[in-house]
Amino acid sequence: MVNQRMLGLGTARSVIRELFEYGKQRSAVVGAENVFDFSLGNPSVPAPDAINETAIRILKEQPELIHCYTSAQGDAAARQRFADSLNRRFQGSYTADQFYITVGAAASLCCVFNGLACPGDEFIVFAPYFPEYKVFIEGAGAKMVLIPPEIEHFQIDFAAFEAALTPHTKGVVVNTPNNPSGVVYSRETLEKLADILRAKEAEYGHPIYLISDEPYREILFGGAEPIWIPHLYGDTIVCYSFSKSLSLPGERLGYVLVPGQVTDAKQVYAAVAGAGRSLGYVNAPSLFQQVVSQCCDLTSDLSVYEENCKLLVPALREMGYHVAEPGGAFYLFLRTLEPDDVAFSERAKQFDLLLVPGSGFGAPGHVRLAYCVQTEMIRRALPKFKALAESYW
Amino acid sequence: MVNQRMLGLGTARSVIRELFEYGKQRSAVVGAENVFDFSLGNPSVPAPDAINETAIRILKEQPELIHCYTSAQGDAAARQRFADSLNRRFQGSYTADQFYITVGAAASLCCVFNGLACPGDEFIVFAPYFPEYKVFIEGAGAKMVLIPPEIEHFQIDFAAFEAALTPHTKGVVVNTPNNPSGVVYSRETLEKLADILRAKEAEYGHPIYLISDEPYREILFGGAEPIWIPHLYGDTIVCYSFSKSLSLPGERLGYVLVPGQVTDAKQVYAAVAGAGRSLGYVNAPSLFQQVVSQCCDLTSDLSVYEENCKLLVPALREMGYHVAEPGGAFYLFLRTLEPDDVAFSERAKQFDLLLVPGSGFGAPGHVRLAYCVQTEMIRRALPKFKALAESYW
Repeated sequence: MVNQRMLGLGTARSVIRELFEYGKQRSAVVGAENVFDFSLGNPSVPAPDAINETAIRILKEQPELIHCYTSAQGDAAARQRFADSLNRRFQGSYTADQFYITVGAAASLCCVFNGLACPGDEFIVFAPYFPEYKVFIEGAGAKMVLIPPEIEHFQIDFAAFEAALTPHTKGVVVNTPNNPSGVVYSRETLEKLADILRAKEAEYGHPIYLISDEPYREILFGGAEPIWIPHLYGDTIVCYSFSKSLSLPGERLGYVLVPGQVTDAKQVYAAVAGAGRSLGYVNAPSLFQQVVSQCCDLTSDLSVYEENCKLLVPALREMGYHVAEPGGAFYLFLRTLEPDDVAFSERAKQFDLLLVPGSGFGAPGHVRLAYCVQTEMIRRALPKFKALAESYW
Repeated sequence: MVNQRMLGLGTARSVIRELFEYGKQRSAVVGAENVFDFSLGNPSVPAPDAINETAIRILKEQPELIHCYTSAQGDAAARQRFADSLNRRFQGSYTADQFYITVGAAASLCCVFNGLACPGDEFIVFAPYFPEYKVFIEGAGAKMVLIPPEIEHFQIDFAAFEAALTPHTKGVVVNTPNNPSGVVYSRETLEKLADILRAKEAEYGHPIYLISDEPYREILFGGAEPIWIPHLYGDTIVCYSFSKSLSLPGERLGYVLVPGQVTDAKQVYAAVAGAGRSLGYVNAPSLFQQVVSQCCDLTSDLSVYEENCKLLVPALREMGYHVAEPGGAFYLFLRTLEPDDVAFSERAKQFDLLLVPGSGFGAPGHVRLAYCVQTEMIRRALPKFKALAESYW
């Protein structure tokens, strides 16, 4: 008898994987160019040339040193580069010892949830949400409390949020720009969130940590600059990954930043590091600690995501779809043309459109469209979306 | 209030780190060449040239593909290479889908413990042992049961082992060649272990998994070939890392192998994968999955470890030290010249010898000597060991 929770996680049906497999089978029948797979959130633009050039340079210059263990929190010079970069961009005064380098965003989140969670603790998550949050929070022995989506603008349903806060609330997770909606929280939303949390901290007499999961921080449209959430709320812990900004999802590199202003900052940092130890993260990959930190002010050419978005949104709205206004990332969230999003996703397959049902993200009645694909594929997909809409007339 | 266990792990005093820090301070006073640091188990030989050459070639040939997500269990071609390599060496018939590629041996162990552990389960560990086993087993919610060392030969105290087996025993961990002793289990030891486990499986009516932690598998002396433990015991799960064989500890790459002969093999594999998901391991680093799998039949030049061993053991025995007969890895386990190993380690510091007390490995009255160092440093250290021994006359 193995652990039943782990067995369940290891054998769980993955809607996204099944769509992807279906797409491969269907491609064999009708040709890959006739299957429009919007299921996967894989960056479609390559890493900057500087990434591979830097890796090659380091491998040639330090062939004997680069593969050694680093300290568990990450190489000191790499952490200093991350601090310097954020200080330049956001007028911060972060220090290297506030950074804990991780094997990507999932590891960042797991270290934070495991570091913070005490028996009985709850973490609040806003739908629509990345479903692995539930896996990670429950893996840390805590409870996830889900706030239903505010489906007009996909900001926050503050009435539901306030009703969900209790003295057991250890933290709140935000993810903006959002997977799966592509929506960016407004400054007004974030300030209101901060005000409520501050009031509740005072009422309960203990900190409520805002865990800001920011893998899409750099993918913002219309020239917008990211809102730096630690400036709005003192008890913010930042979880970052370079998977999307540098198109390096396979290399697994990110960090946790516990700013000095956070309540019990040193204890929180130590607990995050202790969680990293307990979960078996010895250190983040040594070569990519150097490569990424030396390139951390760069991004891939992210402009194609905005181009794709500008092509899709007006066209889809013209066809009669309701689309939440996207502000970044590479996702659109479409209201489905029938209440059952799984049935809608099935119907879309008849038009060779692969769209992920929103139920899995806590937002039934919607589908996610990952448009990190070739622009010309989108152009060819538009008539299919039109035909799908017309099938509901 | 953060999680107290994680806070404890994150702030725990590390004897090895403190010795290392002491060594740096002492070096500033007496010169680095006069401090003999045997505290760290860091490979002292570089990775084979083929590693860096392969990495550079892949970065040049596949600059746009190499950094993508792989499947959670690892790239299929990489898993096939690992299977082919083991099949050639050990006449196995392993398949790619029995391998789960991990972020190193610590991750391999965490995925296995978390995948197997049900409430009330126990895992048996033999002293001397790698102390993170306790962290990983307790992190999985299980109990570690420690068998005291058999201090004459550092094989297994079978009477103590048999007394410790209960229906709660879910698994048994072996680590040969051993950290910290450098001892290799004999075929006789492993066969007797297998016999006892088979009898207990029959008695209890459930499997007892033998978790073989093998990062030192390739570092064997006198031309010995590794004993392939799955051939001796059907319910063996192999946890491997390339950290030592290829001198890549910082890159974090290893695997779990669940052979098809293991009881409930498919469920065990799925639970290991589910644990990887719950712990936040998305996939092992993509570039190094390719690099390592393309070089997995190579090793670093490991001969220096045997050379160092041959220099140390007779010299130390000549001085009157009792040294367990090493068979591989790069550690020696010395019986201390007073019962208190911490006091002995302190006395050794007076001679600028940095040796790790055995208490932390579950074997008081011993110190660990990690001789993955320059051979000439060992030559210069020998008079210090002599002076240390004479100080007890």
